[in-house]
Amino acid sequence: MPTILVVNVNTSSAVTDVIASAARAAVSEATRVVALTPSFGPASVESNYESYLSAVGVLDAVQTYENSGGEFDAVVHAGFGEVGREALQDVLTVPVVDITEAAAHTACLLGRSFGVVTSLDRAAPAIHDRLLLAGLAGRCAGIRSVDLPVLDLEANPEVTAKAFVEQARHLVDEGAEVICLGCAGMAGIHEAVTAAVDVPVVDGVAAGARLAESLVGLGLSTSKARSYAPPRRKQVLGWPLGG
Amino acid sequence: MPTILVVNVNTSSAVTDVIASAARAAVSEATRVVALTPSFGPASVESNYESYLSAVGVLDAVQTYENSGGEFDAVVHAGFGEVGREALQDVLTVPVVDITEAAAHTACLLGRSFGVVTSLDRAAPAIHDRLLLAGLAGRCAGIRSVDLPVLDLEANPEVTAKAFVEQARHLVDEGAEVICLGCAGMAGIHEAVTAAVDVPVVDGVAAGARLAESLVGLGLSTSKARSYAPPRRKQVLGWPLGG
Amino acid sequence: MPTILVVNVNTSSAVTDVIASAARAAVSEATRVVALTPSFGPASVESNYESYLSAVGVLDAVQTYENSGGEFDAVVHAGFGEVGREALQDVLTVPVVDITEAAAHTACLLGRSFGVVTSLDRAAPAIHDRLLLAGLAGRCAGIRSVDLPVLDLEANPEVTAKAFVEQARHLVDEGAEVICLGCAGMAGIHEAVTAAVDVPVVDGVAAGARLAESLVGLGLSTSKARSYAPPRRKQVLGWPLGG
Amino acid sequence: MPTILVVNVNTSSAVTDVIASAARAAVSEATRVVALTPSFGPASVESNYESYLSAVGVLDAVQTYENSGGEFDAVVHAGFGEVGREALQDVLTVPVVDITEAAAHTACLLGRSFGVVTSLDRAAPAIHDRLLLAGLAGRCAGIRSVDLPVLDLEANPEVTAKAFVEQARHLVDEGAEVICLGCAGMAGIHEAVTAAVDVPVVDGVAAGARLAESLVGLGLSTSKARSYAPPRRKQVLGWPLGG
Amino acid sequence: MPTILVVNVNTSSAVTDVIASAARAAVSEATRVVALTPSFGPASVESNYESYLSAVGVLDAVQTYENSGGEFDAVVHAGFGEVGREALQDVLTVPVVDITEAAAHTACLLGRSFGVVTSLDRAAPAIHDRLLLAGLAGRCAGIRSVDLPVLDLEANPEVTAKAFVEQARHLVDEGAEVICLGCAGMAGIHEAVTAAVDVPVVDGVAAGARLAESLVGLGLSTSKARSYAPPRRKQVLGWPLGG
Amino acid sequence: MPTILVVNVNTSSAVTDVIASAARAAVSEATRVVALTPSFGPASVESNYESYLSAVGVLDAVQTYENSGGEFDAVVHAGFGEVGREALQDVLTVPVVDITEAAAHTACLLGRSFGVVTSLDRAAPAIHDRLLLAGLAGRCAGIRSVDLPVLDLEANPEVTAKAFVEQARHLVDEGAEVICLGCAGMAGIHEAVTAAVDVPVVDGVAAGARLAESLVGLGLSTSKARSYAPPRRKQVLGWPLGG
Repeated sequence: MPTILVVNVNTSSAVTDVIASAARAAVSEATRVVALTPSFGPASVESNYESYLSAVGVLDAVQTYENSGGEFDAVVHAGFGEVGREALQDVLTVPVVDITEAAAHTACLLGRSFGVVTSLDRAAPAIHDRLLLAGLAGRCAGIRSVDLPVLDLEANPEVTAKAFVEQARHLVDEGAEVICLGCAGMAGIHEAVTAAVDVPVVDGVAAGARLAESLVGLGLSTSKARSYAPPRRKQVLGWPLGG
Repeated sequence: MPTILVVNVNTSSAVTDVIASAARAAVSEATRVVALTPSFGPASVESNYESYLSAVGVLDAVQTYENSGGEFDAVVHAGFGEVGREALQDVLTVPVVDITEAAAHTACLLGRSFGVVTSLDRAAPAIHDRLLLAGLAGRCAGIRSVDLPVLDLEANPEVTAKAFVEQARHLVDEGAEVICLGCAGMAGIHEAVTAAVDVPVVDGVAAGARLAESLVGLGLSTSKARSYAPPRRKQVLGWPLGG
Repeated sequence: MPTILVVNVNTSSAVTDVIASAARAAVSEATRVVALTPSFGPASVESNYESYLSAVGVLDAVQTYENSGGEFDAVVHAGFGEVGREALQDVLTVPVVDITEAAAHTACLLGRSFGVVTSLDRAAPAIHDRLLLAGLAGRCAGIRSVDLPVLDLEANPEVTAKAFVEQARHLVDEGAEVICLGCAGMAGIHEAVTAAVDVPVVDGVAAGARLAESLVGLGLSTSKARSYAPPRRKQVLGWPLGG
Repeated sequence: MPTILVVNVNTSSAVTDVIASAARAAVSEATRVVALTPSFGPASVESNYESYLSAVGVLDAVQTYENSGGEFDAVVHAGFGEVGREALQDVLTVPVVDITEAAAHTACLLGRSFGVVTSLDRAAPAIHDRLLLAGLAGRCAGIRSVDLPVLDLEANPEVTAKAFVEQARHLVDEGAEVICLGCAGMAGIHEAVTAAVDVPVVDGVAAGARLAESLVGLGLSTSKARSYAPPRRKQVLGWPLGG
Repeated sequence: MPTILVVNVNTSSAVTDVIASAARAAVSEATRVVALTPSFGPASVESNYESYLSAVGVLDAVQTYENSGGEFDAVVHAGFGEVGREALQDVLTVPVVDITEAAAHTACLLGRSFGVVTSLDRAAPAIHDRLLLAGLAGRCAGIRSVDLPVLDLEANPEVTAKAFVEQARHLVDEGAEVICLGCAGMAGIHEAVTAAVDVPVVDGVAAGARLAESLVGLGLSTSKARSYAPPRRKQVLGWPLGG
Repeated sequence: MPTILVVNVNTSSAVTDVIASAARAAVSEATRVVALTPSFGPASVESNYESYLSAVGVLDAVQTYENSGGEFDAVVHAGFGEVGREALQDVLTVPVVDITEAAAHTACLLGRSFGVVTSLDRAAPAIHDRLLLAGLAGRCAGIRSVDLPVLDLEANPEVTAKAFVEQARHLVDEGAEVICLGCAGMAGIHEAVTAAVDVPVVDGVAAGARLAESLVGLGLSTSKARSYAPPRRKQVLGWPLGG
């Protein structure tokens, strides 16, 4: 029974629960999902500063889990637009899937171009940068924000869904044929947005969990040839964090 | 039990059998694979001319299967570098996965850049065009050919494997971190090439079948918003073939 | 006396007649224009599905003409935004000019960027793909549609001209310095649009016929070095179509 | 009888004669070719410095010809890789064709990618810049030089032809399907290079003259909408030259 | 004491004075600024035609200064969006900084994307071309014009400032995080625009002078390896201009 | 007297000293340089994993310095190819200059294209990603490595210089007109490499310090409009480090 480790990027365990449910719903029954909440980093990730802190929080969560005997066959990095996926790839031998990329790759299989609806406007450039590095910016018709902080998104799902639908409709008018929900923990509004916009709507957590499971099924993992080769052994001050 | 329809692009049923086996090995046991061989088109697809004929042969095979009561939940277009995937997307409501794109998207999850080893040199520009339209040409470190016709590739698996390994090694030297087997029906050499080059090797048929199954599992299908909207009803002379 | 073969992509001989006239008006008197109508394929081409069928219809029309002793010095593929030009290049030794590319190349000689007005909105992404592969997408300021089916465009030339002018004006406002008529058979409105928008207006059929004649005059033809080398001899089931 | 003005960029009338012959051979008999030699600027153009001087020399030659009552229907700017085409477009109402662009556009109709063989290595980056601005750099497989000064190219045609063939072969090996002769006045070696490399070889002067004639035939000229609108009237010190 | 030569592109000495003041205010006290006005070329540069003339006027001004014994350690080419920087690089051994590029490079250090506000709309494409060649077009969120001729900009600074603020606000709304003043001689409105738009505003002349001084301080100058190698000696008719 | 804070990315104070010297040599006498060594993170940064840890180490070093009353007018992030510059921009109001970008922007002012010589081959893709996000990848002719670990580079300067010269020469042969030293702390070999390759050689630390000083002199700082707006106040677990 393969195990997919899904790692939240913020320290909110409520968000982790939502993410875990979405991942579980996406994979087959024979696959186990374990969700982790970092014990280092910000309560929500909405800036570059927080994104870099979260990268280390995620690394710490995974290594702590591993060092305590936890086993897993793949990792899902569940921060939409956040940095740090490559760091996990360096230190692990199992595949690592980033939800921004998972959503975008999945969307590319469904339509000619996709749009992203995210939380705050300031996240849009960072999401664009992730897509650019992934080589998929050319397939992106636009990134729009609902102008709501991450943690408010779950507070009132109806307001959130309505706001996402509004921006998604603009994106479809601008040429998007698929919509990506540009935030983790958005599974709750997936159905409502899908119903309203009449194009496929991709939740990155679901897509990421399913792609991770697929890679495990295909017997494929991260290349260790160059970019993600294991780091050389050396002194790291202050690491592991609680060390 | 979901059914994945895997469609060969050439008229060789021996190749179809190899493709079918690769697809079956890639999906979970609960998924059924049905493989089709076109009854129109070339014995092997190695030129633009043959690729366009095959596009219509594939369309015909799928529509004939559908019209005869065949049911399926997704289609895999199993021609590496060949055209025609969009035509299927127009006329179907289930997801359609092209193996060139499936291999490339999968490779992008495994390494920073990938290389493709294909049959004849003349196929390389066509493969590049498919990757360019998919937005993934920037992730491709190179496309190399073994200079062997498609149907010879299976005649002598050892020669084929050796030739693929040689080109794959060049690609790794040139920066490729993942290798895609740039031809359908290459499952037989997957293990040998993987062992020799020490980077992940992606077989498009396996990747395509698994991605198709994933889309079905995620409840996602082709967007009908714009590019792949259903064609308007109209007279089509000579169609269906043999009609 | 050189002969230019102009091939319609749909099966409407009325459209073929309009195309033939436009081509004849564009070339010098010493050049003969022969126009062909496919006997396979859709009545109008407005989707990927129809575009792929038309590619084979065009191939069939040209090969049938050739096999019946018809001689020609160049071919114009007269489907705006449609696929299949490369297939002709593989099997012929004379130059082949696609009207989408002909219009775009010509427009690039006249202004810094061009816009395209086409029939249905769903055609816009396909046109963009053709321009992307041609390397000319960066010179394209936009593609707009009049939202009228192809065969309606000729039914009421005044309505069509008015609709084209409206979209052309938007494109000029958005930076286009030249307008391409994004549909074959639009010669009838060329004058009216030109008069209204005060920028050069390029009809792909005229541009294509003239460029084809130019290539003949320059003694140049398709390179057979790689992409468009002659296909290897092999069995092709069901081909030629009426065979 | 249309008149095409072909303007050399250097002050060598011997080069002008060669260019004039090439242009005459390329257009139809009914078209007149008038060739101009600047009376300002360098004896050969091999650097940015000389290219900018030549731009003004070409402008002066055309305006002097026009002011002295000369009539013409199109202009060919006959400097491969040189700047200044846009200046002519601003001040003229007839079409202006640059030979770098003419060669590249023509090559794109003949093969999937082209290579350029030029004189000195230092010219290669400038040629790339011209192609980049034209949007055609993506179609260029490479630019190679024979490492011979411009004026030496004609001194010994056999040496020149041999050197061009050598570099052209490298380019074909690197993927070029068409070769552009990256220097004006190369008509003399066109045949020899074509015979040796077995791919189409494009001479920019011939291509430019023919395209200019085509634009005249199509009744098309430079857009005056934005980039090439007529300059506002104002004082220009020292201009016209010798004024 | 290093000397920075700042060269106006038009023949208005009033504009030269404004440019000189801006440059002096930007460099450290230990650096001397010498400003030159061309004695050849247009009163203002607003078209390609004028830009090419100005390129030669700038060359002439610098070489005349040099030949008369003037010494300098770097040159600032002070025409926003104008051509000719490379010509200076060929003939000089000291660094040459173009203000379009200086503004763009500086803006890139301050924000993720920048916008440009320029004088006339027709200048926008030329500015885009300069940014494209500099590799910085991807960082540019937009180029907008105030629709005022260059020489009018100084006539009424309040009107000019208001117009610049209006366009700058549009650019910020469209994603620009930094504004570049797309015209030389705009130092006078720098403060007003900065106050109004609340993002960094870059004046190309100030940025260019400071970058030129920095290169001198770092002991770096133009590479003579390839693009900007010294031109070979040869006859140049009519040059130097007053010769 | 302006103060430039130069922050090493690894925990080696010996490297910090070298960096500090290079920065001091680059700025004017009136500018003070303060160099910081992180107390968190790896002894050398040679992988993505270490790069992300260093990003947090750098953040911590700067905030600790600031919280202890340290004042500064600009920050130089002195890790070549490393991540984290944006995090500093979010939390600071003074300008932040990254040495990868500083080297590349400076190189662009000196030649048409630049090459980078770095330590280990695995760093090359990460450097390319930084340049891609900066929009400068198109100006980069290549990235080569000397295949030596970061900390070995200083152990034997002669071996290091020789290795850098060898790779730099390859890059110049491949079209680079300027060389960037792709590692911090390389000031010691700057002279030797410059002497050997005969093109400008840019040290990122020197360039970064000088550009930082220039921004301070120009009164410009990071835009707070969007990407680098101050983070919203929220709980951050485990932060500040050692808190």
